[in-house]
Amino acid sequence: MGLLATLLIFGVSLSLASAERPMRRSLVFPMETDNSYVELVPQKDLDMGAFTLCMRVATELAEGNREIILFAYRTLYHDELNVWREADGRYGLYLSGDGVLFHLPELNTFQTHLCLTWDSKLGMAAFHVDGKRSIRKVYKPGHKVQKGGKVILGQDPDSFLKDFQSKQSFIGEITDVNMWDYVLSDAMIEALHVGKRMPRGNVFDWETIELIVNGNVKVITEEL
Amino acid sequence: MGLLATLLIFGVSLSLASAERPMRRSLVFPMETDNSYVELVPQKDLDMGAFTLCMRVATELAEGNREIILFAYRTLYHDELNVWREADGRYGLYLSGDGVLFHLPELNTFQTHLCLTWDSKLGMAAFHVDGKRSIRKVYKPGHKVQKGGKVILGQDPDSFLKDFQSKQSFIGEITDVNMWDYVLSDAMIEALHVGKRMPRGNVFDWETIELIVNGNVKVITEEL
Amino acid sequence: MGLLATLLIFGVSLSLASAERPMRRSLVFPMETDNSYVELVPQKDLDMGAFTLCMRVATELAEGNREIILFAYRTLYHDELNVWREADGRYGLYLSGDGVLFHLPELNTFQTHLCLTWDSKLGMAAFHVDGKRSIRKVYKPGHKVQKGGKVILGQDPDSFLKDFQSKQSFIGEITDVNMWDYVLSDAMIEALHVGKRMPRGNVFDWETIELIVNGNVKVITEEL
Repeated sequence: MGLLATLLIFGVSLSLASAERPMRRSLVFPMETDNSYVELVPQKDLDMGAFTLCMRVATELAEGNREIILFAYRTLYHDELNVWREADGRYGLYLSGDGVLFHLPELNTFQTHLCLTWDSKLGMAAFHVDGKRSIRKVYKPGHKVQKGGKVILGQDPDSFLKDFQSKQSFIGEITDVNMWDYVLSDAMIEALHVGKRMPRGNVFDWETIELIVNGNVKVITEEL
Repeated sequence: MGLLATLLIFGVSLSLASAERPMRRSLVFPMETDNSYVELVPQKDLDMGAFTLCMRVATELAEGNREIILFAYRTLYHDELNVWREADGRYGLYLSGDGVLFHLPELNTFQTHLCLTWDSKLGMAAFHVDGKRSIRKVYKPGHKVQKGGKVILGQDPDSFLKDFQSKQSFIGEITDVNMWDYVLSDAMIEALHVGKRMPRGNVFDWETIELIVNGNVKVITEEL
Repeated sequence: MGLLATLLIFGVSLSLASAERPMRRSLVFPMETDNSYVELVPQKDLDMGAFTLCMRVATELAEGNREIILFAYRTLYHDELNVWREADGRYGLYLSGDGVLFHLPELNTFQTHLCLTWDSKLGMAAFHVDGKRSIRKVYKPGHKVQKGGKVILGQDPDSFLKDFQSKQSFIGEITDVNMWDYVLSDAMIEALHVGKRMPRGNVFDWETIELIVNGNVKVITEEL
């Protein structure tokens, strides 16, 4: 439903590199829709036995009892890697099937630095909120994330990049989305939280990533 | 009930000592069970007129109204030294009989540094949460902790290492469990909280302690 | 009711002075009673047109809805200078009659540094909690605190050192009680909060004050 206005933004990193002060793009999702989202084009296939996913996210939706999609990676038939704030306030990671849920502090109108790590070997999953790690939970040891899908922010696709529900959409601001195909240490994630930019994401690097914007999403460039 | 898979882990400190970065073992209790626990083998008898017990603990159980066993030392007929988070949210120390209860901040999914001191002379008991001491309470002056028992994490034994109840079991993560047979000063406990490793526990020293794992408990080695 | 066991403690500062590490006495009130209190013997008469009163206090009573006496100075017929935590959670200063009430953070099991200043000239009263000043309130300009009474911690005397009510008694820990017959600056009080010991109280100086203990109160000597 609704018309998709597609806009390609790339080469942004080049123009930013020339600026004196460090700049960063930020995605503003101003309202509830069933057609606004941003596709992230990864540097390599999401063919992973482990990962770290980080983002900075601010939303006022957590005041209500509503699902909020935070990250969706979908292949043709499966939700390969979804991150949700659930209707009951918990946070969920879903790797192609049932998820694992965490009790974390609520997202709010200020920016929260949210990271998520998972490793196939022992199946250890953990969130990191503003640099502090949650308990580890055992989740799908031996599983692998499959390549060949699309990563989007702002909507949850119930089929391959279609069938969005506005009541699950994201409203607010997302920036600094980075992904690695390995687990960063607690100390590294704490350093990222306070603004260190190393190590750069080897699956997504927010500084250079190509973004494909659909619908009503504003791409702001902000000074750091 | 259920089969106990027993696994011996020792000599870990040797392999850890050779690593460049300091490492630490952490115990992950992933789910509610009536058979998963870790036995700690002390360096000396728990024959004590005073003690300091410290641990770092993270759990999401405190969201609910359920007892949570944090530490159990049981001899053949007595719960010699048990530490509980009570169903009403308070924290309790039990030395062979009725306990003493404290109002402390709730445990949560992030790590809390919890210490407990007790001295037989005046019977002064106090908790320390993230380096801050609670009020002191007078509890069992003249009492002594008796030797000859077993120390376990994860379950409360209602008889000698049997009769566990899943509704009292620990879920979450425990690490850095150390015990001294004397009372550490407030300043020393604050230093331990921020990562100082002195003085080493003379009853348990987490760096070298032998752990005997039963059931579904994961032993993670994490960078510090 | 009940027998009063009276114990005189003085000369303590001499023995403490010889210790290597700085030490401090702390008063532990372990339980609700109508007969346990500590009398503070001042260095000079409480004959004052201004004062600063400081103490470090920890209690779990603030979880409930109960009056808690924090400081009582009573002459034969008047409550000359009382400090209360009220049943509704507010804090009150009473100079011989109606009081002035403040909304402050709740006391808890960890130590709070509480100061109170008042000056007769403008009648300005304020609390300082962990070094931060409350709003100032105008209270009894022109009034004077009268000499000839007794200062006690732990109970509120409804007549001259009699008629205590257990439901108003203090349970918890009090230390570092100092009083000056003038108003300290905000900066000085902040310095006291973080452990500076200057200026010494000229009405009470906790390092040298004579304490007269009645009933079930433990005097602990703790390292700083």
